[in-house]
Amino acid sequence: MENSEAFERHHLLIYLVKWLPLAALVALLAGTASAFFLFALEWATATRIAHRELMLALPLAGFFVGWLYLRFGQQVEAGNNLLIDEIHDPKKVIPLRMAPLVLAGTVISHLVGASVGREGTAVQMGGALADQLTHVFKLKSEDRRILLMAGISAGFASVFGTPLAGAIFGLEVLAIGRLRFDSLLPCLIAAVVADQVGLLWGVHHTHYHIANIPGFNAWIVLAILFAGAVFGLTGRVFATLTHGLSTLMKDSIGYAPLRPFLGGIVVASVAYFFNADRFIGLGIPGIVDAFAHPLASYDFAVKGLFTIASLGTGFKGGEVTPLFYIGASLGNILAPFLHLPFALLAGLGFVAVFAGAANTPIASTFMAIELFGADIGVYAALACVVSYLFSGDTGIYRAQRKAQAKHQATLESNW
Amino acid sequence: MENSEAFERHHLLIYLVKWLPLAALVALLAGTASAFFLFALEWATATRIAHRELMLALPLAGFFVGWLYLRFGQQVEAGNNLLIDEIHDPKKVIPLRMAPLVLAGTVISHLVGASVGREGTAVQMGGALADQLTHVFKLKSEDRRILLMAGISAGFASVFGTPLAGAIFGLEVLAIGRLRFDSLLPCLIAAVVADQVGLLWGVHHTHYHIANIPGFNAWIVLAILFAGAVFGLTGRVFATLTHGLSTLMKDSIGYAPLRPFLGGIVVASVAYFFNADRFIGLGIPGIVDAFAHPLASYDFAVKGLFTIASLGTGFKGGEVTPLFYIGASLGNILAPFLHLPFALLAGLGFVAVFAGAANTPIASTFMAIELFGADIGVYAALACVVSYLFSGDTGIYRAQRKAQAKHQATLESNW
Repeated sequence: MENSEAFERHHLLIYLVKWLPLAALVALLAGTASAFFLFALEWATATRIAHRELMLALPLAGFFVGWLYLRFGQQVEAGNNLLIDEIHDPKKVIPLRMAPLVLAGTVISHLVGASVGREGTAVQMGGALADQLTHVFKLKSEDRRILLMAGISAGFASVFGTPLAGAIFGLEVLAIGRLRFDSLLPCLIAAVVADQVGLLWGVHHTHYHIANIPGFNAWIVLAILFAGAVFGLTGRVFATLTHGLSTLMKDSIGYAPLRPFLGGIVVASVAYFFNADRFIGLGIPGIVDAFAHPLASYDFAVKGLFTIASLGTGFKGGEVTPLFYIGASLGNILAPFLHLPFALLAGLGFVAVFAGAANTPIASTFMAIELFGADIGVYAALACVVSYLFSGDTGIYRAQRKAQAKHQATLESNW
Repeated sequence: MENSEAFERHHLLIYLVKWLPLAALVALLAGTASAFFLFALEWATATRIAHRELMLALPLAGFFVGWLYLRFGQQVEAGNNLLIDEIHDPKKVIPLRMAPLVLAGTVISHLVGASVGREGTAVQMGGALADQLTHVFKLKSEDRRILLMAGISAGFASVFGTPLAGAIFGLEVLAIGRLRFDSLLPCLIAAVVADQVGLLWGVHHTHYHIANIPGFNAWIVLAILFAGAVFGLTGRVFATLTHGLSTLMKDSIGYAPLRPFLGGIVVASVAYFFNADRFIGLGIPGIVDAFAHPLASYDFAVKGLFTIASLGTGFKGGEVTPLFYIGASLGNILAPFLHLPFALLAGLGFVAVFAGAANTPIASTFMAIELFGADIGVYAALACVVSYLFSGDTGIYRAQRKAQAKHQATLESNW
């Protein structure tokens, strides 16, 4: 007893002495990468808006991104899924090139106005940079798992300015229905420090404001449960269609660069000729609008189609910010039917479509609290958990393990 | 594929149609029980303060509580641990008498000034009442698991006014190092509704205020990591001593009612002759003080000893509110050494000693946000996670399964 306690204390100290600096180092790398990525993104978006004709370069830019990955990036093309797979079953250190490739691919995608996000980029840069420490410090496979989770947490936290959501995301994204605590401290430290590193570099995150969060009553709960189901089904349809288009393109077009070339033609011609500029790029102004005034009823669907056409054909950046847009604009139009303030529903949709599509209800609840304040906590939790239940087993991350049936009473002694 | 999707949708609808009303019913029962318990507690505390000599009845009251459980409560004496065991390995419906017994035992304990809490009572009433629905609706063992978790969540949420913490507590308390999502929605609904039921009955929860949450810097992080370790070790010492005294009493005194009789003599004589009134009972004024002005350096230790003497000998009520006291007063005295505001450290100690002793870092982080606002989130998470790491495998709930080493990189494909 005495011996095992002494051993455990010894072990805990070694764990801390090892992981506090390592997590901080991961945070320094990932937070810096996120900061420069966000600056590049700002530049790309401003440039695109200043030169509308840049969107006509979508097909060519798509071809170039496809060629880049075909020529240099076949090992890292699986992106977030490669990270998740390596955490579950560590085999080989992630090639460092994942970071510059996804950075270049994303900035180019945004420069010409593909409808893509940014979390994929931040997470992949965070994961790939973190994993390089494996060589530097000659770490074992068990340690690589923690390193990669911390990299994911740090990337997510610093790109969105949400450290708690980032910390939990790195644990929760790995498997559906179960959360393991073994890397909780490294992920938390990496997320908190990376967020601060980004702020020190001068990053500004968009602020969203929900003026009026109504008090609790039975109607609100039922309305939010209903909205949560709609958000979850939307996340599910989005994930299914994106995967479906991606598979279809891979099956029917052998030469990879042609896929985003085609996707670029579709996105560019629709956006250019229908003046659908609000649906291309990251879409932050559209998200902000969803908190401020009623939107057109088709907003979320059009943004969804633009995003599916961009990501499903091979543009880079990730799904999450478009999902924020889809969720916020969907919530915005659901609000009048549910007799609730549209800013509240926009905020709930923002986090809950993502919660369903990524199967991360707890990280998403923390995100709502970090972005919109503590008062939204219970409503966000209800929307995110119901969305998670309704999104089925098709998430945006194919590599996610299915640890457990989402809605099934199980007798299981295996804890 | 189509069939399995249809089956899944069908299954999800059945799950919702079954669990939304059931969870609401659990909430109604548990929230009502908590409300009346809180009113009874208020009466008992006011009566004790008005009649100081009541504390001299501690030995007799202890004897009576011990006799009550010996005569009527042997099946339910394990309390929270019985609930946790039944969730892991459902055998037999919890006897309804658990609810009135723990209610009576706790109110009597508080009437004479034992240093005990209230979460044990609320959780046991919630769990026992919930489990009675097993008979009413002829539910299967798998469903009993969910029912019991929802009862725990509802009891916890309604007694503290913290629905998110309650929802997660019901899942997180079951095992160390892992959290399963299968009952997330029932637990959340039960927690949210039970909290509202309590408020509708007119319950008021104490408000704690942290005026000044300082911005982030490296010193704060290091200081909070250090404080978190102290909080965790404190939780560990508390749990070890309480279990140790309990085992010692059981081994050396065969007739159960004599144990709280002896405990009552010790608590009563120290409290009465040393005028240590602030350390008996629930201790809410002491907790409020910890947020308002500097406390004596021995406060947390004296409260700890009073609580160990009360709970370790068999008084009823639970550990959590005394742990809030111990944590808040310990944080209060750590603050000047760490050059941080004492209200901040009081708030962090409040949640983090509990996080360590109960092994529930995520529920405790939510609790901090619900009680003190979103700005404390990251600091609370750091304190709670470090406390969780430092508290070892000895929690206040012996029945908790050890799902995973707390701090160890493991390669495990079993998700």
